[in-house]
This record gives sequence, structure tokens and C-alpha cells, in this order.
Amino acid sequence: MINERVLTGDRVTGKLHLGHYVGSLQNRVRLQEQYDTFVFLADVQALTTHFEKPELIRNNLYEVALDYLSVGINPNKATIFIQSMIPEIAELTVLFSMFVTVNSLRHNPTIKAESKNSKIDDLYYGFLGYPVSQAADITFCKATIIPVGEDQLPHLELARKIVRRFNELYRPVFKVPHALISDTPRLVGTDGNAKMSKSLGNTIELDSSTEEIAYKIRRAKTDPARIHKNDPGHPDICPIFAYHCAFRSTESLEIREYCEQGSLGCSACKQFITTALDELIAPMRERRSYYAARPKVVADILMSGTHHAREIAQETMTEVRDAMCLNYFSE
Amino acid sequence: MINERVLTGDRVTGKLHLGHYVGSLQNRVRLQEQYDTFVFLADVQALTTHFEKPELIRNNLYEVALDYLSVGINPNKATIFIQSMIPEIAELTVLFSMFVTVNSLRHNPTIKAESKNSKIDDLYYGFLGYPVSQAADITFCKATIIPVGEDQLPHLELARKIVRRFNELYRPVFKVPHALISDTPRLVGTDGNAKMSKSLGNTIELDSSTEEIAYKIRRAKTDPARIHKNDPGHPDICPIFAYHCAFRSTESLEIREYCEQGSLGCSACKQFITTALDELIAPMRERRSYYAARPKVVADILMSGTHHAREIAQETMTEVRDAMCLNYFSE
Ligand code: SF4
Ligand code: SF4
Repeated sequence: MINERVLTGDRVTGKLHLGHYVGSLQNRVRLQEQYDTFVFLADVQALTTHFEKPELIRNNLYEVALDYLSVGINPNKATIFIQSMIPEIAELTVLFSMFVTVNSLRHNPTIKAESKNSKIDDLYYGFLGYPVSQAADITFCKATIIPVGEDQLPHLELARKIVRRFNELYRPVFKVPHALISDTPRLVGTDGNAKMSKSLGNTIELDSSTEEIAYKIRRAKTDPARIHKNDPGHPDICPIFAYHCAFRSTESLEIREYCEQGSLGCSACKQFITTALDELIAPMRERRSYYAARPKVVADILMSGTHHAREIAQETMTEVRDAMCLNYFSE
Repeated sequence: MINERVLTGDRVTGKLHLGHYVGSLQNRVRLQEQYDTFVFLADVQALTTHFEKPELIRNNLYEVALDYLSVGINPNKATIFIQSMIPEIAELTVLFSMFVTVNSLRHNPTIKAESKNSKIDDLYYGFLGYPVSQAADITFCKATIIPVGEDQLPHLELARKIVRRFNELYRPVFKVPHALISDTPRLVGTDGNAKMSKSLGNTIELDSSTEEIAYKIRRAKTDPARIHKNDPGHPDICPIFAYHCAFRSTESLEIREYCEQGSLGCSACKQFITTALDELIAPMRERRSYYAARPKVVADILMSGTHHAREIAQETMTEVRDAMCLNYFSE
């Protein structure tokens, strides 16, 4: 194991789905073999958009924890922890906020894109400060490798600036983190939308039953130009083909060929992917039902991960307090 | 003792002076007899403007603690604590920031006045959020009485809104705090400026020696129209007269009369106030030198005050976590 720490997490605003699996979860399962991997349940950051629905966050936190365990994030290898239980993250957020300008936050493209409307006045203060809080997530545990999608790069760039500024202003407490850009493109939704997303209703959840998978694939969009079985298809605009690429990459070349020739019917094509997805999800369902039946085991995993993260957070805060002359009574 | 809690404090950016004494310290010495009084050394809030000078904050924190003790804030009656040592304040700041709009912060008159230039982009994020952090200071200890000057009223109004919003969104954890407006006007500087302020170099510090007091009063402005001893004076534009009003109110009527008649010379008039100020400051100097010679006693006072505040903070956070469904593993 290389002594670098990876940090990733999810805002716990909903159960995870195949888009998350392709975009990050499968990567984490690999990373945990190689790095000291920290995975966090971002309940505080979930509040930035869902502060009116605390119960939803709480319920989803448990579901996302099950998602993590079900895809194979291994609590013996990775540290799974709850963001709100690390007060040091809030402390760092407040300290960093002193030297980050509103300007740098406001013109951050991710904030711009995420806020439906670009008028700064209408933003919530915590939402505007999202990158500051992200810098705190990264630094409390001194993570140096941050797996992100392309769209999250500006956030990370700001986090890097914050870290450099801190080191410059006070003392080089932190290593500057770097992005590990996922080479997996976004997974399209079953409706053909470029992004699989809960709010679009085009997802396949990681706890789907065989029947649910079959149903969602059956209803999924295909190439609308194919009316008859033998019409030549255009796999590049078909979500089913995207799933073949993502989950059966070896076979996808043949699928493309047969589809373009008009020698493969959509329903047979869908049958292949249904089977493949069910094979992918079946062991997840199994692990999930194991853990779902043992809530105490799940609680223990989260408690001990959080406890471990907390210990590291306290060490970091001691260094931060030293660097910022906030270490009263410590001599 | 009435079971209401008073919260006051100072950003520890400089030693305190007579302006602070008149504006707030003497009031605190009275309040501690009547209420459960919390007085805090605002080192985190000092960072909003002084993040580049952490040593200055640290040194001033110790000086302000001595100021408190020297004016008679009694650690057996009042709780003196260090803001940065209460992580729950940071946690509450982060949680409150989710539901406070940038708009409400930006158009806060105090923020507008305090930022030299009104362009929001140039503000630091933490500075913009000052009222959020103030709401956290107030709520962590459930203070209900907040002594403030008129100029701080908009901040407090925002803190009240934040508290009400929290209670509405989650559960009525907090009582809405109210302002205790100081009826003492600002103390003018020795240069006649409306405000005694360190940055203007027109202050008389609470640890001034007899000689320093005499020197500063000697150099203080008086009515510039008085050239000869017998010229009639205009006490209302004379800082020395303001000091008579503030510190020798009984005698100030006579001073006004004699000054206006031209029967009192400025240097005699200054002599009276020099003596009065020295009498006021002498016991402060004495208490200060007692404590300054006993840094361990001061450290113990701050540690035990902070410890007491921290216990209350933890109780409050438990309630806040319950209200916000962030109370994992607590059943
Ligand atoms: S055959 Fe497959 S890839 Fe081609 S359009 Fe139909 S579902 Fe899509
Ligand atoms: S006599 Fe006193 S009050 Fe009058 S102008 Fe001189 S210093 Fe001021």
C-alpha cells in the first residue's frame, strides 16, 4: 500500500445508481487496494441543497452506506465516515473562509452551473462556500488524491488554491491535493439523457431486483429511427449501446456491428444487457441484504470509520492550531 | 441571579481602552452581578480582518484577558472563554450557513459600513458571514441578552432571524435573543474624533500609567477657539469636557459653567480629568499587575471558563443534532 490518501464521497441526497457505479464507485473499489482510501457520507454538504429535508438526508445516509458496502467498498480496507461527525471539518471551513474571497467562489464555474440562476444574492451562503467546505474535507485528513469528474475540477482547483494559501500564510501543514480524473464518461440515462440522474427519473439503482432491471431496460429508449427489426441502427445515439460499452466492453464491438447491419433486434439486444446488468447487480444485492439485515454491523462500521477519521482530524487540527497561533495552553 | 444568559465579547485585535470601558466593560461589570454572564475573546472573528497576523491576535488575546480582569470582570461570576476553543461554534456556523442567503448578509448595513468598499466580490467569504458566526456565538450558549451598540443592531437582527428560522425549520431549540442597547454614547478620541479608536491613535489604554494619562490629556484637543485663558469656551466640542461627562458627571455641570464663562483654564480643567482618570485606572493597573505576574492563574481562568462554555456547547449541539436528524448512533 502506497502511503497516499484518497478522499471521495457523496452528498447523501439519494440512493446511488449505475451512473455512480460507473463514474466513481467501481473506481473506489480499485483504489482501496492501492491507497489509504477515505470515503465519506456528505450529510453536511447535502444540507446545502436539502436543509429543509433533514429526514431525507438521514434516511439516504443509511442507504448510501449500504450502497458502498454492496458494491464492495471494504470497511477493512477503506475508512467510511460521516461528515457531520467530524467537527474539525467545520472548524477548518470557518478558518479557511477568512482568506477566501467571495470573488473566487462566485466565479467558480461549478457554483455557477449548480446554481440555477446566476444571481449571487439568491444563493445560500453555505452553498456559495461549497468549495471552502470541500477544501476542509480534503485537508482534515490530508488527502492528496481526489478522484473527480471533469465537472468538479474547478472546485478542486479552488481547494488547491486554498491549501497553498494556507501553507503560505501560516506554515506548510498540508500537501497540495491533486485530481485523479475519472476516464469514464458519464453514463447516459435510460431516457437517452446525457446524465443518469435521480431527478430525471432515468436511473437504475444499485439495489434493483432482476425484475426492476428488466423493466427499466425494456422501457429504455433505443435508436428511434429503427422501426423494423432489420432497419440499420445508430448505436451511438442509443443508451442501450452505451450500457454495452460500459458493462460489456468486449462484446460491444459486435453489438455495434450487428446493430448497424440491422441484424440484431433491439429486444434481443436489450436482453443481453439485462442479463449482464443483473449479473453485475446480483452480488451487490446479496451483500446489501446481508448488511441490511444487520443494522448493528453497519452502525459499527460507520462508527469505527468515523472514529478513525476523527482521530486523524484531531491530529491535523493540532498542527493547524500550532500554525495559526491558536494553540493556547498547549505548552 | 436571574436565569438569563448575557453574551458579550471583543475581537482581540488590540488592547482595550477607555472607549471600550465606557461603551461596554463597565456595563459587563454590572451585568455579572445580575445575569449569568459569558464574555468571550473573539479570536476567530479577529481573523476575519487579521488573518495575516495570527501572532498579533494571540498576543492581544492575552492582553484583552488582562483588560477584562483588570476592569473587574470577575471569573467567579462571569465565564471568560476563548472562541476558537469551542468547535461547536464552527459547527453551528456551518449549519446556519445553509439557510442564510447571501442577499441578507450582503445588504446588512454593518457589513456594508465595515467593508471599506461595497463591492461584494472583494469581501472575504468569512467576513461576509460575520453575522452567521455571531449567531453561532449567541446560540451555542443560548444567550438571550446581547449588549450591543446601536451600530451592531443590524447584525443582531440578522442573528435573531437565523435563530427564528432554525426553530421553524427544525425544532424550537433556541430562545430568540434580544439586544440590550447601551445608553452610553461613544467616547470621543483625544483628538476630538467622534470615536476613540486604536487605528486613529487617539486612545487612552486601560493599562496606562499615571504619566501616560497625563501626557495624553495634556496633548488632547480642546476648544480651538480658546486662545487666552479667559476666552469663553465651547465645552460641547471639547473632548476633555466629554471625559468630564463620562467620568465625573456630577462635576461636569460646573465645568461647563466655568468653561463657558472663561473662568476655568484648559490646563486646570485637564488636571481635574487627569486626576479622575488616574483614580479610575489605578485599581485596574493594580489588578492587572497582579494577574500579569501570575500567568498561570490567568491561564487557569481562561481554561476553566472555556471548559465550562464547552460543556454547555456540547449540550446545545446534542439538541441541534437531534433537531436536524444528525444524531447518528445516539439511540
Ligand atoms: S440494437 Fe441495441 S444498440 Fe442497436 S438500437 Fe437497438 S438497442 Fe440500441
Ligand atoms: S476648559 Fe475644559 S472643557 Fe473648556 S475647552 Fe478647556 S479643556 Fe475643554
